[in-house]
Amino acid sequence: MRITRGFQKHPAGSVLVEFGDTKVLCAASVTVGVPRWRKGSGLGWLTAEYAMLPSATNTRSDRESVRGRIGGRTHEISRLIGRSLRACIDLKALGENTIALDCDVIQADGGTRTAAITGAYVALVDAVTWLAAHGKLADPKPISCQVAAVSVGVVDGRVRLDLPYEEDSRAEVDTNVVATDTGTLIEVQGTGEGATFSRKTLDAMLDSALAGISTLATIQAEALAAPYPGALPEASA
Amino acid sequence: MRITRGFQKHPAGSVLVEFGDTKVLCAASVTVGVPRWRKGSGLGWLTAEYAMLPSATNTRSDRESVRGRIGGRTHEISRLIGRSLRACIDLKALGENTIALDCDVIQADGGTRTAAITGAYVALVDAVTWLAAHGKLADPKPISCQVAAVSVGVVDGRVRLDLPYEEDSRAEVDTNVVATDTGTLIEVQGTGEGATFSRKTLDAMLDSALAGISTLATIQAEALAAPYPGALPEASA
Amino acid sequence: MRITRGFQKHPAGSVLVEFGDTKVLCAASVTVGVPRWRKGSGLGWLTAEYAMLPSATNTRSDRESVRGRIGGRTHEISRLIGRSLRACIDLKALGENTIALDCDVIQADGGTRTAAITGAYVALVDAVTWLAAHGKLADPKPISCQVAAVSVGVVDGRVRLDLPYEEDSRAEVDTNVVATDTGTLIEVQGTGEGATFSRKTLDAMLDSALAGISTLATIQAEALAAPYPGALPEASA
Amino acid sequence: MRITRGFQKHPAGSVLVEFGDTKVLCAASVTVGVPRWRKGSGLGWLTAEYAMLPSATNTRSDRESVRGRIGGRTHEISRLIGRSLRACIDLKALGENTIALDCDVIQADGGTRTAAITGAYVALVDAVTWLAAHGKLADPKPISCQVAAVSVGVVDGRVRLDLPYEEDSRAEVDTNVVATDTGTLIEVQGTGEGATFSRKTLDAMLDSALAGISTLATIQAEALAAPYPGALPEASA
Amino acid sequence: MRITRGFQKHPAGSVLVEFGDTKVLCAASVTVGVPRWRKGSGLGWLTAEYAMLPSATNTRSDRESVRGRIGGRTHEISRLIGRSLRACIDLKALGENTIALDCDVIQADGGTRTAAITGAYVALVDAVTWLAAHGKLADPKPISCQVAAVSVGVVDGRVRLDLPYEEDSRAEVDTNVVATDTGTLIEVQGTGEGATFSRKTLDAMLDSALAGISTLATIQAEALAAPYPGALPEASA
Amino acid sequence: MRITRGFQKHPAGSVLVEFGDTKVLCAASVTVGVPRWRKGSGLGWLTAEYAMLPSATNTRSDRESVRGRIGGRTHEISRLIGRSLRACIDLKALGENTIALDCDVIQADGGTRTAAITGAYVALVDAVTWLAAHGKLADPKPISCQVAAVSVGVVDGRVRLDLPYEEDSRAEVDTNVVATDTGTLIEVQGTGEGATFSRKTLDAMLDSALAGISTLATIQAEALAAPYPGALPEASA
Repeated sequence: MRITRGFQKHPAGSVLVEFGDTKVLCAASVTVGVPRWRKGSGLGWLTAEYAMLPSATNTRSDRESVRGRIGGRTHEISRLIGRSLRACIDLKALGENTIALDCDVIQADGGTRTAAITGAYVALVDAVTWLAAHGKLADPKPISCQVAAVSVGVVDGRVRLDLPYEEDSRAEVDTNVVATDTGTLIEVQGTGEGATFSRKTLDAMLDSALAGISTLATIQAEALAAPYPGALPEASA
Repeated sequence: MRITRGFQKHPAGSVLVEFGDTKVLCAASVTVGVPRWRKGSGLGWLTAEYAMLPSATNTRSDRESVRGRIGGRTHEISRLIGRSLRACIDLKALGENTIALDCDVIQADGGTRTAAITGAYVALVDAVTWLAAHGKLADPKPISCQVAAVSVGVVDGRVRLDLPYEEDSRAEVDTNVVATDTGTLIEVQGTGEGATFSRKTLDAMLDSALAGISTLATIQAEALAAPYPGALPEASA
Repeated sequence: MRITRGFQKHPAGSVLVEFGDTKVLCAASVTVGVPRWRKGSGLGWLTAEYAMLPSATNTRSDRESVRGRIGGRTHEISRLIGRSLRACIDLKALGENTIALDCDVIQADGGTRTAAITGAYVALVDAVTWLAAHGKLADPKPISCQVAAVSVGVVDGRVRLDLPYEEDSRAEVDTNVVATDTGTLIEVQGTGEGATFSRKTLDAMLDSALAGISTLATIQAEALAAPYPGALPEASA
Repeated sequence: MRITRGFQKHPAGSVLVEFGDTKVLCAASVTVGVPRWRKGSGLGWLTAEYAMLPSATNTRSDRESVRGRIGGRTHEISRLIGRSLRACIDLKALGENTIALDCDVIQADGGTRTAAITGAYVALVDAVTWLAAHGKLADPKPISCQVAAVSVGVVDGRVRLDLPYEEDSRAEVDTNVVATDTGTLIEVQGTGEGATFSRKTLDAMLDSALAGISTLATIQAEALAAPYPGALPEASA
Repeated sequence: MRITRGFQKHPAGSVLVEFGDTKVLCAASVTVGVPRWRKGSGLGWLTAEYAMLPSATNTRSDRESVRGRIGGRTHEISRLIGRSLRACIDLKALGENTIALDCDVIQADGGTRTAAITGAYVALVDAVTWLAAHGKLADPKPISCQVAAVSVGVVDGRVRLDLPYEEDSRAEVDTNVVATDTGTLIEVQGTGEGATFSRKTLDAMLDSALAGISTLATIQAEALAAPYPGALPEASA
Repeated sequence: MRITRGFQKHPAGSVLVEFGDTKVLCAASVTVGVPRWRKGSGLGWLTAEYAMLPSATNTRSDRESVRGRIGGRTHEISRLIGRSLRACIDLKALGENTIALDCDVIQADGGTRTAAITGAYVALVDAVTWLAAHGKLADPKPISCQVAAVSVGVVDGRVRLDLPYEEDSRAEVDTNVVATDTGTLIEVQGTGEGATFSRKTLDAMLDSALAGISTLATIQAEALAAPYPGALPEASA
């Protein structure tokens, strides 16, 4: 797992996450102000969009803009990312600002949605630092916890963390877990791929997932230990 | 929970599920043959579509056909229903036939997706009975287990089964569980609604959910004890 | 012909119409206020949308939301229902309120558009009662007449009222008539299905249609003789 | 009423109809062969599409291609034109050929749909002549009757034929009639514009309409008396 | 090249351009006021839309409104027309008015985009005359130069002006040039159709194009020498 | 200008082009076989799609897949890239194979379309190498020349090569030139941005552009001097 901050120059937060052969570009763009229906509420807003480059997959996939509609999988993952990151941010403290998280998969080799969440957290922290430095936050600490995610699968009867695509597509059960650095859960999605699974298997997957998330949280913290990768106004600390 | 079979005359299976004030119409339509890309594979196909009547909700909702696109929530639930029911059917035994499950919410008061899955199972059994009676199955028993679903929430710190909409929208955590009649899991989706939850809470929710599913499985079995509600060819038993 | 009021709990008016094997759910949803372009005009607004459940027809039909566009037939019938019901309501007396009529076909066996109009009238009366009870009308009596509709066809040279689907699809001529309880016409749509028809045949169809509408008007009146099926504020009469 | 044949050089039939200030371009394009689902049936196919140039109306109207969807009115009129012209053609005699009728309104001043039908008939005859000359018909005489259409309105209580837009929009009742040259009916569509009308009024409108259609049929016949306006192979008669 | 002003009665400017067998209807519709995002800027707005009737081409082309999306070619040409005409108008002098240029191809035989630009200029002048006569301009002379366009091709190694479709489709190089009456360039688009071309060929094409544009400018000026083809308020001169 | 080959592992060619602060990812995906309408022709096919990540621009731009339609600018550039690269490839020598060029802008700072073309050429060469190594070419040398592109602008009256965005948006004239390594032209697109330009200015811009393209061709050649960045079958050289 490798995290590169400041990958793009325009967004307030821009992170390239590499996880095995999976590469996701997570950008957090800041807009001062909120959508019209939320104006005057004193609350900020956070949205997320996930997409895959046509060239990211083994066989080229069609461009959703060309097809004129977003597929169900894209919708589902975009919503998951948004929910996951909203769990760690106090929208009141954020003030009337909007953060758009764009997670674009550059290269896919399994676990793109969990890599996206893990990277989006780092981009979000950078975006909040940018807002703080520009004096735009309603409250100094809008982020209440760290968020990371892993996928766990069962292949040939054994629980395995973060499978690459080839094994992932053979997995009998596939579980995505989003949790905080202290192991509190944010989202659990377990699916039997044309199969069922026992509660004991679920427990084993959760054990494995939480151990993995703890490791990721450390890597996130290390990446965030370096200073903000762009230029900020002087007064900011 | 009330299950009415044979609600419509055209589809091979048609079930009205009532769950508190939630009413979902689950229809299983059979087509002999499969989509072009699956021809000659010897495998059948099962899809699902979920939708809500504009008049089903407290405040009238826009019609997705008029807006020209399906929303993320609709996509997500349609996919969940499809995955859940595919877990109990052997597509090889089904033979090259297609079953389309349409779950249309007539009235919504919380738990529409889990009511849809629970009703769709009964409609699916009727559709398979219809196929058997017409001699279209590749193998006599394509259905391997019973499928039912419940939602569990945590309200004011207490775990509660199948919340009506008003409480559901106040829930801190919301978990949908799909499982078989023997308590094996098919899908677990737990979400902190702007909040996080401990693993202990997840365990309590799973206990409650599996107890609920067991009750639902009994109600399904009772409903299916009556004969097929439509006309079948003589030779069928 | 059977009319069930109060079929759903959320809309101000909700009527299930059964006409032979045809079943249409007609809901009248009320919004206080009008669309932006009509604000300050003192006039209310009434729209209608017609749709068919995929499972309503003999062979499952595609969902228009999934195809991403509304078909010509749907458009045509939605417009017909809206025009027909606007003929009986004084939009000034309605005040700046909007009534949305949703006619969703649960089961189709011929004559769905005329059943929809006939049921929508009853739902509309209930919605107006609700508005009156909440003191939202500009004027006490916005509805000026009763509206009902029938289809008449010519099969094997004979004029026949309200054909079921099987005969309807064999009809040489098909005429839909919308009229008031006193026999005044609102809409007449006569079509030779790949054939032509004499003016004498048109006259015979109109005779038959107006007789049918008179019967329907009685059934509507009987159904409306019972009190409003939901809860209303005390002061309402 | 003025009919100009051969207005465009590419389609087999191309007619400009002028009716007061209303101008509609009616083109009949021929394709040898039929859509896939109709192949091998021995039957031809005829479709129609109606559209309005943005600059045709008093106030510029939005382009439906830019809005990305066809409006209800466009759908309704396209279907009406198709049905009307299919009433006069024997699709078996046409053989496996497709005729597409495009009716594009260049300038609108009331009665565009009836002008379109009247012009489309002439374009259709030319297209059939073209097919005959190229030896593509299954049978020599696929057209069984002449088709024309008028609109009749009631303004200030008086029945009036073919109202220009300004009066049309004031009309209390508006009826479109499609009929053959011998006065047999093809389609009757009478609408009270926010009003109702008596059967006696309908009769008066039909009298007036059929008289008007008789006149139009004469003008069509005169226009068609001239030879085919384009080049045909020698052997054609 | 033939220019007919006042072809339609509704738009402030309406011009039929005939260029060999190519016929394009160019309408300039005026709206007092500008889109919301431009209000209060003191600047006017000019847009252009290009489209082709389905019956305009040798083989009938699909209607973009029916397909639900605009093709790349249409987009490209609409943008070109808009840019070209904005080069000759001072949007400040125009005042807060909007001019929509609709270029609809009635018959296509090569060079439709350049014919559209040449005709749109004339329609634009008429629209500005209309605005002046109604006292709506911020400044009396918003148009600073004349705009015309030609296409030049290389066929069989020779430079040729305004090729008809048959030769155009054989052209090795195709260049569209938009320029003013004094030979200043507005847009140059040269394309090797699956081929490349030397700078010398480009020069020869530009020579030929500018000579052609000079001729067109004369024809435009002659057409505009006649008075405004519609009715204007008295005070206008 | 920096060119990184082998940026992604899945496509046969994948190139990251950096041009000042502009970064474009150009992928060439190979499919054995051609679209249905081209089968049996013996000719290959090459398409191109251009898109921008929402986070690539100074202010976040909307995602075209979410808006449900592709904008005119995207369409225009995609077509330009396709035309430009088809000028250098012999589709007969390519054999019945399809190459899809995806140019996704990661970061935009002016000149994205010309950077895309320059990078796409390198990706295309790699894709052809891959096809050769897998024995899929009809003919050994399908690429006939090198293709590169630059944009030239006039700012404050001076001709300038490859302006960054800030200056680009101030440019009075903007010209994109696509040419081969020997200076033969493929495409010239010169636009006065609300201004006009003399032929002398065009000449100066072309001089500057061709000099720039010559430099780019050298950089391309250097980048391609290194071996193919992925794994190829042994027999390939």
